[in-house]
Amino acid sequence: MDKQGTINVLKQADAVCLDVDSTVCEDEGIDALATYCGVGQQVKEWTNQAMGGSATFQESFEARLKIINPSCETVKKFLESHSPLLTPGVKEFVNLLRSKGCDVYLVSGGIMEIIEPVAALLDIPKENVFANRLKYFYSGEFAGFDKTCPTSRSGGKPVVVEKLKKQHGYQRLVMIGDGVTDMEACPPADAFIGFGVNVQRKAVKEKSKWFALSFQEIINVLKE
Amino acid sequence: MDKQGTINVLKQADAVCLDVDSTVCEDEGIDALATYCGVGQQVKEWTNQAMGGSATFQESFEARLKIINPSCETVKKFLESHSPLLTPGVKEFVNLLRSKGCDVYLVSGGIMEIIEPVAALLDIPKENVFANRLKYFYSGEFAGFDKTCPTSRSGGKPVVVEKLKKQHGYQRLVMIGDGVTDMEACPPADAFIGFGVNVQRKAVKEKSKWFALSFQEIINVLKE
Repeated sequence: MDKQGTINVLKQADAVCLDVDSTVCEDEGIDALATYCGVGQQVKEWTNQAMGGSATFQESFEARLKIINPSCETVKKFLESHSPLLTPGVKEFVNLLRSKGCDVYLVSGGIMEIIEPVAALLDIPKENVFANRLKYFYSGEFAGFDKTCPTSRSGGKPVVVEKLKKQHGYQRLVMIGDGVTDMEACPPADAFIGFGVNVQRKAVKEKSKWFALSFQEIINVLKE
Repeated sequence: MDKQGTINVLKQADAVCLDVDSTVCEDEGIDALATYCGVGQQVKEWTNQAMGGSATFQESFEARLKIINPSCETVKKFLESHSPLLTPGVKEFVNLLRSKGCDVYLVSGGIMEIIEPVAALLDIPKENVFANRLKYFYSGEFAGFDKTCPTSRSGGKPVVVEKLKKQHGYQRLVMIGDGVTDMEACPPADAFIGFGVNVQRKAVKEKSKWFALSFQEIINVLKE
C-alpha cells in the first residue's frame, strides 16, 4: 500500500486508533510524571530506548516505573498540577472522525491514570481507552502495574487492534502514532500514519507510507 | 520434644511468633471482611478448606479475594466499622513476653490492612508484622495481592520464621497458632504451641505437643 492507499483507507475508516504520548499529546506522560518526581533525566533515557526499539517495552516500562516509584498520592497531585498538553488540531480531528461515524480509540503504552484526563478532554469514553493501570498498596505506595494489560507488553498494540476488529467487525481501521510500537500494529490495522509533529523516529519516518507533520494535514486530506 | 520440652523452650524464648486469625483474634479477618461485603458464606467455605489443608493456601486466598473483590474504599469503611476482636489474655501475654525481653511477631496468612490495627492495639511495631498486602488500582478497585510476600504461599510461615532466626540469631523461637500452616512452621521454629481457644483443628490438636486452651494457660506456665 502506498500513501494514496493509506489515504483511501482513512477516508472510509470505521475506526481510528490514536497513540497518546507524543501523538495526541505533545509530551510523554511518564516523562512528565518523572520530571514532577525529580527523576526526569533518568527516565527520559529509558523512554527513548523503548521508543527507538532497543529495549523490550515491558523491560523499559518496569525499569522507568521503578525509578519513579509513584505513590497514589503523588499521581493525584501530579494530575492536579498537570493539564494534558494536547497536540494542536487533535480535538478537531477527533470530532471530524466522529462526525463521519468513525469510532475513535486511544491505544497507549502509557499510564491509564494520566491518559484518562486526555480522553475526557476529547470526549472519548473510558471503554475506548487502552493503557496500563498502575497498582498501589493500601498505604498508597506504588505496587507495580497490571501485567495482564496487552499494552504493557511488546506487541501489545497489535493485540488490541486485532481484538477491536474482531469485536466490532471493523474493515478499515487506521493506526496513527509516532512510535515503532504503533507501526507494529499494522497489520492487523488496515493502514498506518506515522506522526512526526512532536518527535520524529527515524525507523517510523522511513517506513511510513504517510508520515504526517500535523493533524491539520490529515484533516485537510479527510475534507478533500 | 514432648510438652515439657515445649514449655522449657517457651520459658527461655527469645522470640514468639503469633498467628493472628483465630489465635490473636477470635475471628478470621478475611471472613469478617467477606461478611461485611455480603459474601460471608461462600468465603467461609474456602477458608475452612484452606485451614484444614485440603487446598493450597494461595489457591484459596486468591479464590476468596476474587469472591470478595474488595475496593480500597470498602476496606477503609470495614476497618472504620470493625474493631479487632482480641482473644482474652493476648494483650497480657504479649506484655509478659516483652517484659522478659522476648521479641513478639505477628505472622499471618491474612490481610495486612486488617492486621495492622491489631498490631497497633498490642504495641507491636509494623516491622514485626508479616502478612499479605492487597493491591488496588487508582480508582480503588481491587487489583490482586503481593505474591512476593512469603505468607501468601503454602509453606510461607516457615520461610518467615527461618528468615527471622537468621536475621536476629534467635535460638528459641516459639510459634503459636491454631492452623496447619502454623504447625508447619516448626521446624524451623524451635517449638510449637497449638491454640484451641477459638477453633480446634483436628490435625493440629492431634499433633501438637502442647495444645493450649487459653492464653491464661500459657501465661500461668510462663509465670510458674
